[in-house]
Amino acid sequence: MSVDQTAKRDIPDATVARLPGYLRALGQMTSQGVLSVSSEELAHSAGVTSAKLRKDLSHLGSYGVRGVGYDVAHLNYQISRALGLTHDWPVIIVGMGNLGRALASYGGFATKGFKVVALLDRDPLVVGERLDDLAIQPMDALDALVRPGEACIGVIATPAGSAQEVADLLVAAGVSSILNFAATAIQVPEGVHMRKVDLSTELQILAFHEQQRFGASPEDFLEGAAR
Amino acid sequence: MSVDQTAKRDIPDATVARLPGYLRALGQMTSQGVLSVSSEELAHSAGVTSAKLRKDLSHLGSYGVRGVGYDVAHLNYQISRALGLTHDWPVIIVGMGNLGRALASYGGFATKGFKVVALLDRDPLVVGERLDDLAIQPMDALDALVRPGEACIGVIATPAGSAQEVADLLVAAGVSSILNFAATAIQVPEGVHMRKVDLSTELQILAFHEQQRFGASPEDFLEGAAR
Repeated sequence: MSVDQTAKRDIPDATVARLPGYLRALGQMTSQGVLSVSSEELAHSAGVTSAKLRKDLSHLGSYGVRGVGYDVAHLNYQISRALGLTHDWPVIIVGMGNLGRALASYGGFATKGFKVVALLDRDPLVVGERLDDLAIQPMDALDALVRPGEACIGVIATPAGSAQEVADLLVAAGVSSILNFAATAIQVPEGVHMRKVDLSTELQILAFHEQQRFGASPEDFLEGAAR
Repeated sequence: MSVDQTAKRDIPDATVARLPGYLRALGQMTSQGVLSVSSEELAHSAGVTSAKLRKDLSHLGSYGVRGVGYDVAHLNYQISRALGLTHDWPVIIVGMGNLGRALASYGGFATKGFKVVALLDRDPLVVGERLDDLAIQPMDALDALVRPGEACIGVIATPAGSAQEVADLLVAAGVSSILNFAATAIQVPEGVHMRKVDLSTELQILAFHEQQRFGASPEDFLEGAAR
């Protein structure tokens, strides 16, 4: 094991959770042709304090230069490397309803270090259908897709009622990281990493700012608008 | 303006951004019948340090009881109130492709203080189609849906190429908060609150943990698996 990898293990979970936000902000700066950025600017774009940003980046061994800031391209690389995104991670999406199809065609994955390698559904009516370059496969294709010791991320995009069953199948096949988009909590054995995406999180943050702006509840407005 | 509302204005953005995570963790505890929780347990569930959790909650005037912790139901209410979620916020979704349809039928919004009040698309072929209780409306219905001074959140679920045009239409109609799911950056005038959802964020965090687990890049595994 290299010294570099030992260092990575010391990054706190809370810092890891903020790294994608920094990466997103850096990506926007790159697309705008920005070459270097101060910790204050980057912190503002990512919605954290500059003290927290500097502390987070220090875990990556990255320190800005006084009066110059951070080199956007280099910091982008450092964070990508820390997150393991300098290579493509294989992703299997289960559930080819609206959400699964939206995720399958989501342009953001490919540019962020992920490659969707398989699409699965248990409905025989959609199995065989092609979405872009991939044909939808039946659930029993799962075992052949995941090999022991091979890194693989499973995405659950099924209705809530099927999510636990699909999680069990993914775990049984050897998938060790699961991203759950279904609107229900699922249980996985210890040793399997699971994250749940709640699509309403960002709406909740917006609601806070709407409340700040209007200083009252929506009902007050609906009543006001009915004047 | 009540003292309570004045207090809300002092909540830092970084704290606001973490509140939905606490709310999600509390929701899971509620569904498991948990009545009270220590700051350590709640912090662990939400992926932050307990010191940060206690500081965040202190901005809401919420302090745990030593040896007892936080009352789950009361803390849930306090955070919901701070975020403005004790009433329903009206949400308009634009773009009725796979993602828009997935969002329209997403069970999580209704239980989290949001009410989808309108679905819009510019394609005459889908206008008039019913999804659950709502008929898809044409884009020119927008002006009648948003009234000045009325709180309203617009969700952009269009292809990247249409996102800026839709944002302009939403702003012109008076929408003051926009959630952008399209895989592109959009510009909005000052005074309009915009957040961009990057569906790959959670995948990036998982990739970090996969890398920690395997201690190497996916390519190493793919090569290993080809043995």
